[in-house]
Amino acid sequence: MSADPSLDATNVTAAPGVPDQALLEDLVAANRILFNQGVLDAYGHISARDPGNPAYYWITRAMAPAQVTAADIIACDLDNRPVRPGEKRLFFERVIHGEIFKARPDVMAVLHSHSPSLIPFCNSDTRLRPMVGSAAFLGEGAPVFDIRTVDDGGDLNICTPVQGKGLAQALGQHCLVLLRGHGAVAVGSTIRQVVRRAIIAESNAKQQLQATLLGPVHFLTMSEIEYAKRQKPKDPDRAWRLWKQQAMGG
Amino acid sequence: MSADPSLDATNVTAAPGVPDQALLEDLVAANRILFNQGVLDAYGHISARDPGNPAYYWITRAMAPAQVTAADIIACDLDNRPVRPGEKRLFFERVIHGEIFKARPDVMAVLHSHSPSLIPFCNSDTRLRPMVGSAAFLGEGAPVFDIRTVDDGGDLNICTPVQGKGLAQALGQHCLVLLRGHGAVAVGSTIRQVVRRAIIAESNAKQQLQATLLGPVHFLTMSEIEYAKRQKPKDPDRAWRLWKQQAMGG
Amino acid sequence: MSADPSLDATNVTAAPGVPDQALLEDLVAANRILFNQGVLDAYGHISARDPGNPAYYWITRAMAPAQVTAADIIACDLDNRPVRPGEKRLFFERVIHGEIFKARPDVMAVLHSHSPSLIPFCNSDTRLRPMVGSAAFLGEGAPVFDIRTVDDGGDLNICTPVQGKGLAQALGQHCLVLLRGHGAVAVGSTIRQVVRRAIIAESNAKQQLQATLLGPVHFLTMSEIEYAKRQKPKDPDRAWRLWKQQAMGG
Amino acid sequence: MSADPSLDATNVTAAPGVPDQALLEDLVAANRILFNQGVLDAYGHISARDPGNPAYYWITRAMAPAQVTAADIIACDLDNRPVRPGEKRLFFERVIHGEIFKARPDVMAVLHSHSPSLIPFCNSDTRLRPMVGSAAFLGEGAPVFDIRTVDDGGDLNICTPVQGKGLAQALGQHCLVLLRGHGAVAVGSTIRQVVRRAIIAESNAKQQLQATLLGPVHFLTMSEIEYAKRQKPKDPDRAWRLWKQQAMGG
Repeated sequence: MSADPSLDATNVTAAPGVPDQALLEDLVAANRILFNQGVLDAYGHISARDPGNPAYYWITRAMAPAQVTAADIIACDLDNRPVRPGEKRLFFERVIHGEIFKARPDVMAVLHSHSPSLIPFCNSDTRLRPMVGSAAFLGEGAPVFDIRTVDDGGDLNICTPVQGKGLAQALGQHCLVLLRGHGAVAVGSTIRQVVRRAIIAESNAKQQLQATLLGPVHFLTMSEIEYAKRQKPKDPDRAWRLWKQQAMGG
Repeated sequence: MSADPSLDATNVTAAPGVPDQALLEDLVAANRILFNQGVLDAYGHISARDPGNPAYYWITRAMAPAQVTAADIIACDLDNRPVRPGEKRLFFERVIHGEIFKARPDVMAVLHSHSPSLIPFCNSDTRLRPMVGSAAFLGEGAPVFDIRTVDDGGDLNICTPVQGKGLAQALGQHCLVLLRGHGAVAVGSTIRQVVRRAIIAESNAKQQLQATLLGPVHFLTMSEIEYAKRQKPKDPDRAWRLWKQQAMGG
Repeated sequence: MSADPSLDATNVTAAPGVPDQALLEDLVAANRILFNQGVLDAYGHISARDPGNPAYYWITRAMAPAQVTAADIIACDLDNRPVRPGEKRLFFERVIHGEIFKARPDVMAVLHSHSPSLIPFCNSDTRLRPMVGSAAFLGEGAPVFDIRTVDDGGDLNICTPVQGKGLAQALGQHCLVLLRGHGAVAVGSTIRQVVRRAIIAESNAKQQLQATLLGPVHFLTMSEIEYAKRQKPKDPDRAWRLWKQQAMGG
Repeated sequence: MSADPSLDATNVTAAPGVPDQALLEDLVAANRILFNQGVLDAYGHISARDPGNPAYYWITRAMAPAQVTAADIIACDLDNRPVRPGEKRLFFERVIHGEIFKARPDVMAVLHSHSPSLIPFCNSDTRLRPMVGSAAFLGEGAPVFDIRTVDDGGDLNICTPVQGKGLAQALGQHCLVLLRGHGAVAVGSTIRQVVRRAIIAESNAKQQLQATLLGPVHFLTMSEIEYAKRQKPKDPDRAWRLWKQQAMGG
């Protein structure tokens, strides 16, 4: 018997059709890139909502992101039940994905990481704020989710729907939420955007940490944040292609 | 129709003759070296003024510096219009190059980067100052250009001639100018000198950040800065050759 | 004549039987992984108690962890005498292993390292404390052993039984003890758990150092520490397999 | 005509005999190791006094340490004149070597580096002090040579005998001296010892910088420094062999 009751669910409803090959390819590349760039280590996971069937999302089985192939990607419904019965190797924190996809219809991809330079900001009252235009998605500062607001039992992991809903609420309309004593969740409208945000958040954190050594830090102004949000990034696929080449060769 | 009106310009005047092969080779190597040394990532660009025709400069098409070859290098006039009509893949911030080449006849090469350790100094009142003789080109501290002095719309990028002229004015007679919330621009009399300055600025920034942990920092004195500026660097090509070998093999 | 009197010991008692192949394989992998992850350099050593004969432990001859093979692993008794007479290439600090195995019957593996990011905490009154759930084994802060409490001669190394016993006493029931001016010792119930703890301690130290730049640091609460200690880590072998692949290929 | 008058010297006296092959091999390895470990970049140099003829030392021609082979090593007298007339590619700061070999008959090897983590200590009133036993050679703190004490012209480089003698005087009986706004010089009784000291000084500097974030730093005590100086390092060649393998393969 599984310790995870959702694994025994059999009332799976309409499953997504044939998976989108481009999406699966990007999901594999995202796992490899995020490992190669130091955002993920042996843990963490990224998912993509099915473009044709928004009640489902794609994610790998529980495994190290560095070792992912297309064959490792499975579909789950928004209650985080695998479409194919009998799947056992599931991320125990996949509730993060389902609850955020429910709360944020605009979100098409979700990443949970332990991005190393974000941890100091998870455990501080100092907010992670944008140092440069490409980090404007951080807005006036990334919110921090304290799991004690929904569950004071001592658990730091997001394993239950209540914990997942609490996290989604803390995320609100932001693009990134930090988890006290734990890590981060980034969201976006595409896999590539989420990957981009995660990599920029990590480098922004390093630069903000360094900047505190120099005295008061001048972050982007509100009008700069708003301006940057209105603009599409210039040629974002240029970075994606480079990161993919670095992570996967070719 | 292009979103960038300069692309439709047809009144291109006398173009540079056959490109200087040694210059193109150095420009390719500069792109590869600056990526390999961590000054550039997927973005940023370096240009060289045409030695025979100072009203033109050479730069790559919009692409990742790590992937540049000689075939990717094109010529632009100082209004940043490509010599060959129909070129579409152009850096949208190439106005930086044209405006600086106009304002500084002595400058033969220009680099725009998001050099990671310089960002903290872009967003601080603490000046980047020389820790060692090879960084004497930083003088009494690198100036910081705040784009709000010319354009308070919220844009951080240098896309218009007015923004480019403002940046060139902030650069003045310096060798490096920092851009608040954005990055840096380095200039020099050769491609190799600009590459050298960019790599030294990045390491100097790291060392200055560390030094602040130890108490008051003793920077070079004015007489040391002046002395170092008067001296030619000893065997600068030694570093160039090593960097090129590291970046390109052979 | 050896400078180390224990080498001349001949009263070796019942030796362990045929070594456990899986244990030896893990011990080799542990050495390679700890080097690859930057916990060990040319020095440091990890041992495993013999599962069938708890009065003996396995450890490599004195050598660089990066170069270890199964043929380099020997057995010692808890007085740190090699089972096979005539062994000369022994770690002079192996007393650490014997004394901790004596004092802690629950401990099955012991690591001594100079893990670089732990050194600052060895020489400070600020305690190394858990930033994230996986570091809960640090409890309310890792103890620091000051060798002057047992030996004020000026030696920083743990070479004598008295020094080893003092260290074991400072360790107490903790999982990690820091050694002032020297390094760290981690213990656990398996080789893999000790490796995991050592790698997490190193990254936790980096993150705690960074967090101090942001103001007061919010560490795990007591209930979070207790909760995490009660839970088994989720899929710890996932990290082990990845680390092993990174260190040894295949 | 050379800009360096010493190059025209013709009164070279008794030259060293056939070079010691083991010494040359160690000198090549030292150059490669120090580059691989990040102590040297394209600049810096290490020399070894001739064991049979202490009025001469061996050093490479002016070149990047990463590219050194045995054929690049030449002999100089203690006035820094090459034994073989006509040698032109000489380090312009080689006066450092001759003056220290003159002042310190016990010294058999000299290294000049711009070791990156030492630079902050060159420009601070905070002394570089030993964090761990292997760094005890730093004593109560490395001295800092300020070139203005011998030459207030603004030059930071050590090019003249007066500057070299001033540096040797600041070194005194220490093992390492820092040069304000410049770098460091390490000395020892063998090439391997100097390499070891240079690598340890770099890591000690990083750890001391980090430790300042945690509050007052507890350095080695005087009795610990004295004890460590009296002891021979345990198996120092273990690190040398590992470093050599990392730098040169095999």
